Amino acid sequence: MSSDKLRVLTGITTTGTPHLGNYVGAIRPAIAASKSSDFDSYFFLADYHALIKCHDPAQVQQSAREIAATWLALGLDTDNTTFYRQSDVPEIPELTWVLTCVAAKGLMNRAHAYKAAVQANEDEQQDPDYGVTMGLFSYPILMAADILAFNAHKVPVGRDQIQHIEMARDIGQRFNHLYGETFTLPEAQIDDNVAVLNGLDGRKMSKSYGNTIPLFLTEKKMQKSINKIKTNLLEPGEPKDPDTSTVFQIWQAFASKDQTAWMRKQFEEGIAWGQAKKELGGLINEELSSARDEYEKLMADPAFVDAELRKGAEKARARAGKLLAKVKKAVGIPPLS
Amino acid sequence: MSSDKLRVLTGITTTGTPHLGNYVGAIRPAIAASKSSDFDSYFFLADYHALIKCHDPAQVQQSAREIAATWLALGLDTDNTTFYRQSDVPEIPELTWVLTCVAAKGLMNRAHAYKAAVQANEDEQQDPDYGVTMGLFSYPILMAADILAFNAHKVPVGRDQIQHIEMARDIGQRFNHLYGETFTLPEAQIDDNVAVLNGLDGRKMSKSYGNTIPLFLTEKKMQKSINKIKTNLLEPGEPKDPDTSTVFQIWQAFASKDQTAWMRKQFEEGIAWGQAKKELGGLINEELSSARDEYEKLMADPAFVDAELRKGAEKARARAGKLLAKVKKAVGIPPLS
Repeated sequence: MSSDKLRVLTGITTTGTPHLGNYVGAIRPAIAASKSSDFDSYFFLADYHALIKCHDPAQVQQSAREIAATWLALGLDTDNTTFYRQSDVPEIPELTWVLTCVAAKGLMNRAHAYKAAVQANEDEQQDPDYGVTMGLFSYPILMAADILAFNAHKVPVGRDQIQHIEMARDIGQRFNHLYGETFTLPEAQIDDNVAVLNGLDGRKMSKSYGNTIPLFLTEKKMQKSINKIKTNLLEPGEPKDPDTSTVFQIWQAFASKDQTAWMRKQFEEGIAWGQAKKELGGLINEELSSARDEYEKLMADPAFVDAELRKGAEKARARAGKLLAKVKKAVGIPPLS
Repeated sequence: MSSDKLRVLTGITTTGTPHLGNYVGAIRPAIAASKSSDFDSYFFLADYHALIKCHDPAQVQQSAREIAATWLALGLDTDNTTFYRQSDVPEIPELTWVLTCVAAKGLMNRAHAYKAAVQANEDEQQDPDYGVTMGLFSYPILMAADILAFNAHKVPVGRDQIQHIEMARDIGQRFNHLYGETFTLPEAQIDDNVAVLNGLDGRKMSKSYGNTIPLFLTEKKMQKSINKIKTNLLEPGEPKDPDTSTVFQIWQAFASKDQTAWMRKQFEEGIAWGQAKKELGGLINEELSSARDEYEKLMADPAFVDAELRKGAEKARARAGKLLAKVKKAVGIPPLS
């Protein structure tokens, strides 16, 4: 955790229940990377972002609980990393206000998410800002604070998030220009090889398509869900094309090279869809069953999860607090003597 | 300080040095009112608002120091009231974010200060948002948090500030509607009898006109400043009209009824301008000299001022912290167990 290591910061959205797509595309690689002691890794539950989209308190709370338990169950090392709820670090909203004072409104006007909302309103001949909250409009500033509060060097994001990192750089740079060198300017870390998993209907697995397979189903329910994956009508014995099959695509995401080759052969030899799905259920179960047991244990023991999050919040606050004090001094608000 | 008292909250801008106009129009009546034990009074230095307009750290810091010392020197009772720096209450920016998520962008679009900035840009054929920061655009949300964090009932403001109180009501109401009764909806407390003092040039005394008489000048400098008040060319012995005279107007603000009647008579009898100004200097000095001595002492003893502000911040945080915990629970972010 020494400060000369590369600081890598990952925000985790806390809306919805984690699914296999989240696991393969984001959680599994992040947890693997976090084991490296070359980096100083920050993982946070972005619950203050969740409030922008979700006004259902029960869902906000449940999702944060599930997601915290998920990452812990999958082996996130909370000693080697800093794992916390955004909302447990008041330095972040405080920094948000300071950055709000230097962020140009014009910058927010150009944010993709805001522009999309305006476009949708204009398409329906509504007022451009109809239904737009200030949360939606100004969340790039909260994101900037999330990142700048830790002077993170790298932020692993998808291509659709690059703009936010650029905005964080822009805001940080503006602050540095006005008040002197304070913030490290973060860089987006784009991994174009991110595994994108298909969902039940063959489109990208996504909550918004309603085609997800939840990550921690019981073995039986997992098999049931897998059985719903859309396939074609080819009979047992007829050769099947692995490269257009969602069953095979998901298989690949969990299989070793040898297992992948083996399944490719099964497809060519006309494995029945039912059988292929059964094999897939078995493979997924193999990778996830012990984590699932751990997950169930953690969901039944919120005090343990909370203790982990408290430990993370304390580490996060110690670091962000130092930086915030520097920021406040720079703008002319030193601490009381 | 029991919570069934009417809670009255007053924000104090911390840009610039307090002048006689601030004293007569705002500080003196507020301090008088604060002595009543019928109210639970909050006074705060709005230093997080100052960052919107002022990017000069030395000025932000100096102004806050001067203004804190001014209120204390003039006798603000910090046991009977809660006197704090906004920036020492992190619950306020944290609440600001939560309120940001429920505030409509359309509401901010209609804020007077923002609209004036847009108009000025359009007049100069600039981009409407040229030079507009998110601080300027979204500060009504910070103001809402300032007020709602203490569930203040009344906010004494000038007519130009009524809109901000209405916005705070609007945002609080929206939160209550979404998440259940949480915030008291504040009311603007307009005093149309607020004394408006004229400045050296006869216009309203205001920092922006550069016509102010600073509050705590030495006796000698105060007299020098008063001597600069614009008068007409009437000679000693010629009768003078008190009701068009700035000297008389300021006199009235400091004089008893009897003293006012006496000076009116002097004007009718043709008092020399120099003599009238000397009388005025004497009168002001009488009211302010002991406070000025106290002010000088406080400016030389920042540790004492800071201790007072810390006491206030602790009281403010205790109250705002309880409410914020309730707010966070309501939105689905309960504390860690």
